[in-house]
Amino acid sequence: MILDKIYDSKDVKKLSIEEMNSLASEMRELIIKKVNAIGGHMAPNLGIVEATIALHYVFDLPNDKVIYDVSHQCYPHKILTRRKEGFTDPDKYLKYTGYTAPEESEYDLFKIGHTSTSVSLATGVAKARNLNGENYNVIALIGDGSLSGGEALEGLDNAATLNSNIIIVVNDNEMSIAENHGGLYGNLKTLRETKGNSECNFFKSLGFEYLYVENGNNIQDMISAFEKVKDTKKPTILHIHTLKGKGLAQAEADKETFHYIMPGLLDEKPDNAKIQLPEDYTSITREFIKNKIKTDKKAIVINAGTPGVFGFDSEYRKELGEQYTDVGIAEEHAVAYASALAKNGAKPIFTVMSSFIQRTYDQLSQDLGLNNSPITMLVYWGGISAADATHLCTFDIPLISNIPNLVYMSPTNKEEYLAMLEYAYNQNEHPIAIRIPMTELISTGIPDNTDYSQINKYKTISKGEKVAILGLGNFFNLACEVKDELLKKLNINATLINPIYTTGIDEDLLEELKQNHELVITLEDGMLDGGFGEKISRFYGNSNVKTLNFGSKKEFTDRIPLDELYKRYHLTKELIIEDIRNTICEKICK
Amino acid sequence: MILDKIYDSKDVKKLSIEEMNSLASEMRELIIKKVNAIGGHMAPNLGIVEATIALHYVFDLPNDKVIYDVSHQCYPHKILTRRKEGFTDPDKYLKYTGYTAPEESEYDLFKIGHTSTSVSLATGVAKARNLNGENYNVIALIGDGSLSGGEALEGLDNAATLNSNIIIVVNDNEMSIAENHGGLYGNLKTLRETKGNSECNFFKSLGFEYLYVENGNNIQDMISAFEKVKDTKKPTILHIHTLKGKGLAQAEADKETFHYIMPGLLDEKPDNAKIQLPEDYTSITREFIKNKIKTDKKAIVINAGTPGVFGFDSEYRKELGEQYTDVGIAEEHAVAYASALAKNGAKPIFTVMSSFIQRTYDQLSQDLGLNNSPITMLVYWGGISAADATHLCTFDIPLISNIPNLVYMSPTNKEEYLAMLEYAYNQNEHPIAIRIPMTELISTGIPDNTDYSQINKYKTISKGEKVAILGLGNFFNLACEVKDELLKKLNINATLINPIYTTGIDEDLLEELKQNHELVITLEDGMLDGGFGEKISRFYGNSNVKTLNFGSKKEFTDRIPLDELYKRYHLTKELIIEDIRNTICEKICK
Repeated sequence: MILDKIYDSKDVKKLSIEEMNSLASEMRELIIKKVNAIGGHMAPNLGIVEATIALHYVFDLPNDKVIYDVSHQCYPHKILTRRKEGFTDPDKYLKYTGYTAPEESEYDLFKIGHTSTSVSLATGVAKARNLNGENYNVIALIGDGSLSGGEALEGLDNAATLNSNIIIVVNDNEMSIAENHGGLYGNLKTLRETKGNSECNFFKSLGFEYLYVENGNNIQDMISAFEKVKDTKKPTILHIHTLKGKGLAQAEADKETFHYIMPGLLDEKPDNAKIQLPEDYTSITREFIKNKIKTDKKAIVINAGTPGVFGFDSEYRKELGEQYTDVGIAEEHAVAYASALAKNGAKPIFTVMSSFIQRTYDQLSQDLGLNNSPITMLVYWGGISAADATHLCTFDIPLISNIPNLVYMSPTNKEEYLAMLEYAYNQNEHPIAIRIPMTELISTGIPDNTDYSQINKYKTISKGEKVAILGLGNFFNLACEVKDELLKKLNINATLINPIYTTGIDEDLLEELKQNHELVITLEDGMLDGGFGEKISRFYGNSNVKTLNFGSKKEFTDRIPLDELYKRYHLTKELIIEDIRNTICEKICK
Repeated sequence: MILDKIYDSKDVKKLSIEEMNSLASEMRELIIKKVNAIGGHMAPNLGIVEATIALHYVFDLPNDKVIYDVSHQCYPHKILTRRKEGFTDPDKYLKYTGYTAPEESEYDLFKIGHTSTSVSLATGVAKARNLNGENYNVIALIGDGSLSGGEALEGLDNAATLNSNIIIVVNDNEMSIAENHGGLYGNLKTLRETKGNSECNFFKSLGFEYLYVENGNNIQDMISAFEKVKDTKKPTILHIHTLKGKGLAQAEADKETFHYIMPGLLDEKPDNAKIQLPEDYTSITREFIKNKIKTDKKAIVINAGTPGVFGFDSEYRKELGEQYTDVGIAEEHAVAYASALAKNGAKPIFTVMSSFIQRTYDQLSQDLGLNNSPITMLVYWGGISAADATHLCTFDIPLISNIPNLVYMSPTNKEEYLAMLEYAYNQNEHPIAIRIPMTELISTGIPDNTDYSQINKYKTISKGEKVAILGLGNFFNLACEVKDELLKKLNINATLINPIYTTGIDEDLLEELKQNHELVITLEDGMLDGGFGEKISRFYGNSNVKTLNFGSKKEFTDRIPLDELYKRYHLTKELIIEDIRNTICEKICK
């Protein structure tokens, strides 16, 4: 095993090409085994093995600096930088995160998980080097899919004028997560077809030096290329052509499925794949969208480069035809585009992950909110999660709720969700965002006839006294549990409310609660700071009604199990009851 | 007067070239007179007069649609679309906003004021047209300065693949607000020099058809060009070369000063311009920065295309040399770049307007907050304002305050501000933002020795009882007034606190206040939703202390005088006293 000889980057330099080729195979095997065991980014890492080995061979890391965009293709880099055990030892599979992490290693400069940031970060690193009077290479490695993001494009425009060493490796595997979208990819194709020789060159137009490598999976070719650009004094693009998923037949054949996989995908028998999955919020959303597309030629669905999250597989996308736009990773464009579609009579539905909605704040405010365009925006995965610090989904309520004119709704079951979808789609008054529940599908079986055009009108589920519980979206069920527990433990028959709207308060209802309630508690699946509960506390601030807000703290958590977070934030019925008892007991408990 | 013949767009079509040339002169005269009288965007509008006339001559507005980027060059368009009176009649100078506004005219599609949005919006309009089965031209007009924004670049990448009519007029006047920055401008220069014939063409690389007009201030040339691209079925760039400030000698000579002017600039005697202006927060900031740059080679100041806001005139910029980066309009890049500079040992100071900080939320969170990079960020103009709806500065506290790891400080006087600047610059712990006061310069004359590294430690200015007043930043003086008034009117000796940090709460101090206070009020110069006060209300929610939060509502206001807004939001000492009385009087007033 060549791998046995590898402790860190420097050991790569001692290898022959033949040994490096063996090393690539060994690394690939490790990656396939680990990712299949615990899930993760499969195809991006398989494609970049050779380039990573060559990079460590040619450059003097960590003195030279490398920054991986999205950093979901850093597994080979981690193997070569003292973290091999995270791949060889199943007991240590979870020891290291799937992204670069400075706290793990001096070979990692930044915590990175959102796309399109590497070029700007590398420009800053290079400029600091210049100010410090130092002298080393700064390398950003960015995939073609990430190039379309505004930050990457702003970064390229600026990096090109740095007038000193910066090397941007464009890893062109002809893919985003799904297929690529946008004019830039046409140019990458032209450049591939002309082996980098076309004069019509996006990168050269910005002022970069430019070099093309036809076979980015050939270690010798990559070493030669890196040696050519090493120590350059000019901003330089190294455009390398690689095969996403290389070395794993299934991944090469279906790059999209193997971009990120859940554990065990390779173990599944072919038949299992065809089992009908149970209905869930994603499937009913998909169904809703398909029906609209079929029956309304003005319907159009938009997403920004992550169709798999919403279950938009290639067959489904084909069915949507011209009524589907994948803008690529370009959330800012997506929101402005959707706003303009709505203003011009179309019916846009924009689907987006909670973690990525924050990539487009100004557009939500200026293009959408200020123009009050009636789009439907579906926010997936919003809620406290055990995810990596780079992919938390706890910030969408504060983000969306404090932009004027936006309406953000949180359904609690299937029927409510479908009714909200219909309302949002058909109305012409507001930008409506809906937070798709993260719970299992809950069905009441009873169609929901609520008039959701009465913005900020909360639903009273059951009237009680002393304590009122406002249980938002994902946490409505927790609210029900708390209600039951209050009766059992403190003999309080609490009022239960489904507030629905995170963007506003139902003043009449809140006012009425003052009559026979001592305490109003709020439960929201997200950060308290700037969120829903604080609006309720502000409302009651000048009254005798007390409030308790339950949700998450303002912090970046990193792969902390959900039950631990729930304990930390007092998000269990027991801890909530305890807090209620401490707040009001001397006064009203029996 | 040709102008007398013009009511709306259609009347332009009846004119001869000669008449249109006269019309251009007449319009230019109106614009100069009005802008000098009430202030506004001078040079951008003077440069686009001929192109606007030609556009209205060739296209069938409002059936064909035109979208102006930033829309600060829409004055000629307004003159030709039934809003001439807003320029001919001084009594109606303020009737129309300086930006496009659908509520004013069917010729305006969107409310626009932030840059770089027009291409994405036009793409949405064009796509809706296609879905509707309609057939008309969609035109975006974008200045070279706006091209560098991420949204514009994302938009171009997507517009290029629309596969139907969209015409993007790139108004290249060789200027951003100040000089242009970024590699893209090198390509515009190459294209100008080759009269559009270079094969190395940024726009063609994305897949656009491309046409160049050497003299964009020649009506006949512009008519010919527009006629060529009209009804095209392909995404097309019309690159026009114009003269910013054309027709006003001073503006042609000093395009930057005349980008946006205050009233009366043209009336000023040359000598007046040299009068030493009094010290203000902008001047002491400028001085602070210059000293750091001189004494610390690792110091670097960054701004995103609006140097004039911070008083960085061309001479000052020259002095900063390599320790100054204007990234162009590219706030996302600016924040990531600053974060990386700080992580690599440099000392970045990023200056930004409150209204534009929201253009970079994800970078504040991921590139900066998550990586906890010790940059100094100076936020200008934060506060409730009488501005146009597109340029409000009321959202920065909610935006910044709810991102983990960021620290946002609000000084109340010169000495505090300088001490905070020193602290922020020298520390290595946090990203620190400082909200530069919008008040006149207040000096205590006593150096401030506060240890600001004790994050979230509020300052108690005077201890009292019953009522505590937390007066943040700009509103600290209002808090002082309220304190005096409380003593006078209600005989309450209130506690006065300067909370400094909008990003967190001083739990010890707030806890202590419970002992002898019935009411805590907060005053903040910005939106209440998601802001500072709500954090205080949440803290006290489960206690007997009542709270009142004063600040602005969640709404887009549009050119409403400040005193009217203050009344609306109860931000006068009289109204605040009234609210306090209503909240606590039966209990504690004497």
